[in-house]
This record gives sequence, C-alpha cells and structure tokens, in this order.
Amino acid sequence: MRLNKKEIENKLRQLPNWQMQGKAIGAEFQFSDFPETIRFVNRVADVAEALNHHPDICIYYNRVVISVYTHSEDGITEKDFTLAEQINQLLQQ
Amino acid sequence: MRLNKKEIENKLRQLPNWQMQGKAIGAEFQFSDFPETIRFVNRVADVAEALNHHPDICIYYNRVVISVYTHSEDGITEKDFTLAEQINQLLQQ
Repeated sequence: MRLNKKEIENKLRQLPNWQMQGKAIGAEFQFSDFPETIRFVNRVADVAEALNHHPDICIYYNRVVISVYTHSEDGITEKDFTLAEQINQLLQQ
Repeated sequence: MRLNKKEIENKLRQLPNWQMQGKAIGAEFQFSDFPETIRFVNRVADVAEALNHHPDICIYYNRVVISVYTHSEDGITEKDFTLAEQINQLLQQ
C-alpha cells in the first residue's frame, strides 16, 4: 500500500542517507575507488534479489546513486523502506 | 587527444549500439532479468578496471545504460572507443 507524504517524511527522518528524489526515495554513497564501489553494488544487488525488489542504481566511478520506488503502486511503500534499510545495514557490516 | 565531430561520427557508424548521448557516447543493453544484468555490469567493470577508464553505468532492472567520456580531455577520445568496443565484445562471448 502506498504511503502518504507524512508517513514518508516520518520514515525518512529515521533513515540516514535517504531523501526524496523526484517521486522515489534515493541515497548517494561514496567509496574510495571503483572496485570498492562495484563490490557495494553487488551486495545491493544480492539484497534486491532476496527481497525481489530492485532499485535503480547509477555508478559514477566511486559514487553510487540508488533510487527506490514501487512501480506497481506508482508510489513509495513499506517495501521501499525495507530495501533502503537493508542497504544502509550493508555499510555497517 | 580529443576527437572532432566528424571523427566521432565515423567511428560511431562502425560501432553497433552506441550513439551520442549528450557530450558522451552511450549505449543501452537489455537482458532477461536482474541477475543477468548484474553479471554484465561486473564484466563491464572488469574491462573498465583493466583499461583504467571508467564509464558511468546505470542499472534499471534488466537494462543497463552506459555512458563513456574522457573527463581529463573534456571530450571523446580513442580511449572511449576502445572501452566501447571492448564492452560490445562482451556480448559476443
């Protein structure tokens, strides 16, 4: 179910790195070099496959911009926040 | 050394999939699913590391949009076409 604007804002306040990015929620992550960046993208891909929910991922050398959205609902859902939280957790491992 | 517009156009004619994409040369590749897409991105990353020339890579589920540009020259160079050709070769392997 689509979250409303207030629900999204409340959840974003508890989710470091993430903010509204157009209609999606998005985050940017920076690494020391390209191989480290690619390793992170692979871990994000594993999380996405496990959740069967796939973000848009853009790689700019040592930066990754991730954008999460529920196309089937044309909005932001709990699924998007679960994916975003799991991506954040990768940084703590 | 930066290639001029005519040189770039001539080279693009011999390079399937690639076209001007803003100031860069770019291509879009489509796969059957997300894991296959990620495998392709990893092979592109290996090529990029070997050439020490890194494209921008955007992943949209089963599509990859690649953009190649020589920032140090603020233009398109032979290096960009070498990278683009090697990316195309991955599809034939």
